[in-house]
Amino acid sequence: MADNTNYEFDEILEQIQHTIATDDREQFLEIFLNNHTYDQAQLYLELTPEERQVVYHFLSPMDMATVFELIEEDVEDVEKYLLEMNERYAAKMFAAMYADNAVDVLQEIKEDEAKKYLKLMPRKTSTELMELLNYEDSTAGALMTTEIVAIHELQTVGDAMMMVKQMAEEAETVYYVYVVDEENRLQGVITLRDLILQPDRTLVKDIMQERLVKVHVYDDQAEVAQIIRDYDFLALPVVDEDEVLLGIITVDDAIDVIDEEATSDYSGLAGVNVDSQSTNPLISASKRLPWLITLLFLGMSTSTLLSRYEEIIANASILSIFVTLITGTAGNAGTQSLAVAVRKLGTHEEEDSYLKLLIHEVLTGLISGLVTGLTISIVVGIWQHNWILGMIIGLAMFCAITVATIAGSFIPLVMDKIGVDPAVASGPFISTLSDLTSVLIYFTIAKHFLEAFMN
Amino acid sequence: MADNTNYEFDEILEQIQHTIATDDREQFLEIFLNNHTYDQAQLYLELTPEERQVVYHFLSPMDMATVFELIEEDVEDVEKYLLEMNERYAAKMFAAMYADNAVDVLQEIKEDEAKKYLKLMPRKTSTELMELLNYEDSTAGALMTTEIVAIHELQTVGDAMMMVKQMAEEAETVYYVYVVDEENRLQGVITLRDLILQPDRTLVKDIMQERLVKVHVYDDQAEVAQIIRDYDFLALPVVDEDEVLLGIITVDDAIDVIDEEATSDYSGLAGVNVDSQSTNPLISASKRLPWLITLLFLGMSTSTLLSRYEEIIANASILSIFVTLITGTAGNAGTQSLAVAVRKLGTHEEEDSYLKLLIHEVLTGLISGLVTGLTISIVVGIWQHNWILGMIIGLAMFCAITVATIAGSFIPLVMDKIGVDPAVASGPFISTLSDLTSVLIYFTIAKHFLEAFMN
Repeated sequence: MADNTNYEFDEILEQIQHTIATDDREQFLEIFLNNHTYDQAQLYLELTPEERQVVYHFLSPMDMATVFELIEEDVEDVEKYLLEMNERYAAKMFAAMYADNAVDVLQEIKEDEAKKYLKLMPRKTSTELMELLNYEDSTAGALMTTEIVAIHELQTVGDAMMMVKQMAEEAETVYYVYVVDEENRLQGVITLRDLILQPDRTLVKDIMQERLVKVHVYDDQAEVAQIIRDYDFLALPVVDEDEVLLGIITVDDAIDVIDEEATSDYSGLAGVNVDSQSTNPLISASKRLPWLITLLFLGMSTSTLLSRYEEIIANASILSIFVTLITGTAGNAGTQSLAVAVRKLGTHEEEDSYLKLLIHEVLTGLISGLVTGLTISIVVGIWQHNWILGMIIGLAMFCAITVATIAGSFIPLVMDKIGVDPAVASGPFISTLSDLTSVLIYFTIAKHFLEAFMN
Repeated sequence: MADNTNYEFDEILEQIQHTIATDDREQFLEIFLNNHTYDQAQLYLELTPEERQVVYHFLSPMDMATVFELIEEDVEDVEKYLLEMNERYAAKMFAAMYADNAVDVLQEIKEDEAKKYLKLMPRKTSTELMELLNYEDSTAGALMTTEIVAIHELQTVGDAMMMVKQMAEEAETVYYVYVVDEENRLQGVITLRDLILQPDRTLVKDIMQERLVKVHVYDDQAEVAQIIRDYDFLALPVVDEDEVLLGIITVDDAIDVIDEEATSDYSGLAGVNVDSQSTNPLISASKRLPWLITLLFLGMSTSTLLSRYEEIIANASILSIFVTLITGTAGNAGTQSLAVAVRKLGTHEEEDSYLKLLIHEVLTGLISGLVTGLTISIVVGIWQHNWILGMIIGLAMFCAITVATIAGSFIPLVMDKIGVDPAVASGPFISTLSDLTSVLIYFTIAKHFLEAFMN
């Protein structure tokens, strides 16, 4: 981006604030609306609540709607901005938003508030939005928008162009025109690129692409986003069981889904939500502490277990210097396996691939454990001139890595089965859990060896 | 996606294989080209090398180009497929590909091979590709394509539509038309949506959007992708220092960048490349082992350190049961801080925000450490009826968490400064390193307490 962007932004912000202070609506509209809607949203967010009150008088609900669609993506607490507005103004704004974005906001705010706005809207709009609100959060239905360009197969290219021109203001994208039959069942698609190349009289039927990729309204959003990515689509049609066209999902929403999915996997692996970062360390700490304290208590069970082996440690203190090595290495192996499993589950492959993954991880764990165990037993044997100790450490390492690797892929699979997001079975959880199993394995092996060789 | 997709795919694959076996070119083309290019690529990848040889005779280099653009995204080893082709055929295919995708492939294969293909292309095409090959991997230049629709500002909407129609076959997107002056400097942009709404005689100048977002050719790809995401663009123009329009970056490439960036951060956090998963456990293990063994030796330094405290452990074996608790919890805190820092660095914010992040993490570390330290000292005090032990553990926990939190954000910052991808300073590395510092902190504190209270 040009280096002067920030400078420009500040300058425009100042100008805008000046027009607000001087109550100069005309000048405000000229400067404000000349920006991209994303920049309009950034400007709006920089204003004080008092300044925003003036903006609500300056901007029509229609113009505010385009701004609000971008604020909704950027800001955690949209409710605050809604409550500043006059209720009727807010309702008009919702009605002017693309249905998918309006639904996103209405889902986030309190149910009572949402109902209030829905009541103030034209019946047709509120019915449409209420239908969309019924779809579960992670489905294609909750992501789709209903403003689409659809024509009948017996119409001509000229008709289609007319329709595109009429819908250009309202529809989220006019670059794909969907073809339906009398019962509104999806039959084909034509791109605007193809439309402008054809003579007006051509029948839509003759040039439409009949082999089309579509998704069902209850399909998973992540899956839908992946299709858009794979096929390089700008939009994807959504149909019900009877193939009736219900709406479309556009590429900008697909990007958001892909990014959110990745961020949530990533956050889970670290045990911290990287998306909602506060500039206040007190708030940051308060968001990280629940995980830290929970894991602290889980870690206490490892300490409790260790305390049962205190006598062995007191007699063979050399054992204690390898505890962190075994728990640490097994934890690393478990995290590797976890990361692969969570990512695999995110792509929602078929049932039998779960079992394949598990078998694959068992074998991978055995091989990794074998190589690492052999390595460490040789290193310890040479270092400590004690080959029995080497064998204890090596064997413990082998078992601990194998168990951690299996646990790393098994736990997210189980969580997915019982309907919990496996991204929450995060890295710290697996490594803390693997501390416990590793210590158990280590001292059980050590105890048996000591009993066998020392007595 | 419809449940019958896989069934359909297998059926089509069979049909295709039949047309190949019977050398029925006409039938092959009819079935094969009726699929989406993504599906064409999937079908192609399922064929045997012998079958693919026939495909190279059936498909024109132009049709093969559209297939190859999608293979390039999906497959790690494209060279294998290239070597199957006749050199002239491959060169023609490269020339027919969108420049950005052709460059992606040419960058991946051996330099000699790439030169060979470039020599066989028309001069104009090879010059264009060689220019693009000069841009560094992570820059906007390496991501952009040069096939764009550009017109002069004094032309009319009718001219623009004519141009769009002419370019419809060649350009990667015709939905944005860029406006340039005589020196090819970018002046504005018009969407196809706007164009079709305007009468033919309107001057482009009068309806173009002059306030446009553009990127420079050396800008970072991640930054460019973020702009496309924020503004919901379908494409973004790329200019040089003189504002001369060089190319565009399309939304499908932006998605890939966002996804790759996220995957690489995620892989780094786990110490495993989740993108290249093999079905062979031996290969999987061999890819995970380098990290495991490296960290094993790093972990050995913790054991070496612990061995210096063996005497203390032998005398006060109770200390050893809290080692994993302290190293584990500090490791978790370090991973949290690391994840935030790596993500922050990924968005490439301004210089001064690095320092802000560090200060923020120091404070967050102190607060988290304080709360966790206090909690554990009370728990241990009550559990072991030993308040001195509680103080030792609590103080060690406080220091270890603070140090790990700072290290978690400081190390990626340093790596970024010296030009190493901070995503490599992965979770396992931080937690293994934090094991070392935590043990050092713990036993230093314990030693001092013991000396003070026991003597």
